[in-house]
Amino acid sequence: MTRTNRQYRLARRPRGRPDPDVFELVEEPVPTPDDGEVLVRTWYLSVDPYMRGRMNDAESYAEPWSVGQVLKGGVVGEVAASNHPGFEPGDVVAGHLDWADYAVAPGHRLQPVAVGDAPVSTALGVLGMPGRTAYFGMLDVGEPRPGDTVVVSAAAGAVGSVAGQLASLAGARVVGIAGSDEKVGFLVDECGFDVGVNYRTEDVRTAVADAAPDGVDVYFDNVGGELSDAVVRSLAVGGRVVVCGQIALYNAETLPSGPRLGPLLITKRARVEGFLVGDFAHRWAEANRRLARLVTDGTITYRETVADGLERAPAAFLGLFDGDNVGKQLVRVAGPPATRAD
Amino acid sequence: MTRTNRQYRLARRPRGRPDPDVFELVEEPVPTPDDGEVLVRTWYLSVDPYMRGRMNDAESYAEPWSVGQVLKGGVVGEVAASNHPGFEPGDVVAGHLDWADYAVAPGHRLQPVAVGDAPVSTALGVLGMPGRTAYFGMLDVGEPRPGDTVVVSAAAGAVGSVAGQLASLAGARVVGIAGSDEKVGFLVDECGFDVGVNYRTEDVRTAVADAAPDGVDVYFDNVGGELSDAVVRSLAVGGRVVVCGQIALYNAETLPSGPRLGPLLITKRARVEGFLVGDFAHRWAEANRRLARLVTDGTITYRETVADGLERAPAAFLGLFDGDNVGKQLVRVAGPPATRAD
Repeated sequence: MTRTNRQYRLARRPRGRPDPDVFELVEEPVPTPDDGEVLVRTWYLSVDPYMRGRMNDAESYAEPWSVGQVLKGGVVGEVAASNHPGFEPGDVVAGHLDWADYAVAPGHRLQPVAVGDAPVSTALGVLGMPGRTAYFGMLDVGEPRPGDTVVVSAAAGAVGSVAGQLASLAGARVVGIAGSDEKVGFLVDECGFDVGVNYRTEDVRTAVADAAPDGVDVYFDNVGGELSDAVVRSLAVGGRVVVCGQIALYNAETLPSGPRLGPLLITKRARVEGFLVGDFAHRWAEANRRLARLVTDGTITYRETVADGLERAPAAFLGLFDGDNVGKQLVRVAGPPATRAD
Repeated sequence: MTRTNRQYRLARRPRGRPDPDVFELVEEPVPTPDDGEVLVRTWYLSVDPYMRGRMNDAESYAEPWSVGQVLKGGVVGEVAASNHPGFEPGDVVAGHLDWADYAVAPGHRLQPVAVGDAPVSTALGVLGMPGRTAYFGMLDVGEPRPGDTVVVSAAAGAVGSVAGQLASLAGARVVGIAGSDEKVGFLVDECGFDVGVNYRTEDVRTAVADAAPDGVDVYFDNVGGELSDAVVRSLAVGGRVVVCGQIALYNAETLPSGPRLGPLLITKRARVEGFLVGDFAHRWAEANRRLARLVTDGTITYRETVADGLERAPAAFLGLFDGDNVGKQLVRVAGPPATRAD
């Protein structure tokens, strides 16, 4: 194969909010799969807030990217060539692959895409890692009970929108916090949230206190920082804060300070708990099955925001920190159009 | 009865660290019990850090004291007169009673003191509220497992010393943090802690990291503030922070700031959880029974620091914030001497 393969590499480590020039686009020949390997043509590339952590040279749950390394993330694509007995050209697969037109990977690191009647792009969103994150974070860590009041931040995002709908299904009253009236409309009108709060135009502390007069039983936190300070002031006795993401802090050069929560946690007998979806790997099949059924029968609604073209990946990633996306932010590199793209 | 009854009242609300003049000693006639009431002669009075919160005019789990009100706390004493069929003069009882020579209370609010072979003063310490706090906080919230590393702050205090010993019994390696070499010696030589850290002479972050090379599985936190910041840096994956007390913050006029822990809690899949012993009231009998057996057979060691005379109650209370006490701080007003007083 002699076609050109565009790849994004990490040009240097960012400080604070990344500039676009931390991403370097290079051209290489399309690689050839070795024994046991598969060549995948990228259709959709996922950009996710957690990737910001991999840009730092700091120990975390995900190994940091090296400077000069090709960036990697969730990809859905089509098998272009295979030296693995389990795959043949034309198969649609998902994997943790390069930000590139093409990538090779060992066959055992790829999964066949099985999303039933849903578009294949959902394997990166509602039926992929973000959907599973919502599933385990809300149901296993948050444990919403009928009659509970559940607050979700970044509620119109890929994880938040699913988390809130799962809480509704569990019988909870759901309050979503998002950054535009359009997003709030999506939450209330399409996702069935009971209340939507626009944090850019409303005082979050007052709005949450009004929406949760008996207190917040579960706060599913994708944001952190001052927005979360405002929510936890309304924690109910026995409240649970599920720390799923902290996008407000990912670009901070030093860990910011905030109110010490110890006395509040005693008074409210509350807990704050972080989790990673990777720790639930033994139960991913359960989550995939249940989410696929709920999406297919229309019980769970989802949204995708699609940037067209590999060259738009850096902007799509950086836009996550401005809340540019509604639902799952994808980059479409090739392949079929998304059916629910904005 | 015409004897004089000395009582401590709250003269005014303190700001920050209380001055001694927030306590006002007044003299009243000894009260007479009405129908269903009992007159108790105070033997031992408990002073506890949580009482600082009751001095503020702020909503909390314990109702605030009113200015002018007689202060109340855990008391062990002898029935001096009874208009309740369940009690007669000479009975030894415990209850939530006045800081006073004598107090009346409805009989149904008093418990007979049943400490087996232990001194009656233990009904306010290892076999009372502090012991039960250690029991439920460590075993039910902290859930130490064999091989875990458990760190306890204010480890030589009434709660911490028992919490650490219960963790040892559960098979954990126990590190205690305290404020003097004498206390560290008590922890290691008498309570069987594996490591003692003197926070006044050692760098806590380094000492804990050295003592817990595989990370801290359970941090039983009685202190809060910067000392706790230093400990949580060593949290293990799956770590649990039991927020039992926050004595470093109780005198703060506004809630201090500290590092935002969200990102750490995600990386470590850790939880921070507050609790109140009152929420375990349905299981107090279980805790009392088990603790009494462990104390009686010598498995659990305890210490008491006794201030002699009701007039020393304010100083004994304020001394808690300086770490003056080893083990349970009591005020002896009358009755038999403690057998393990310092």
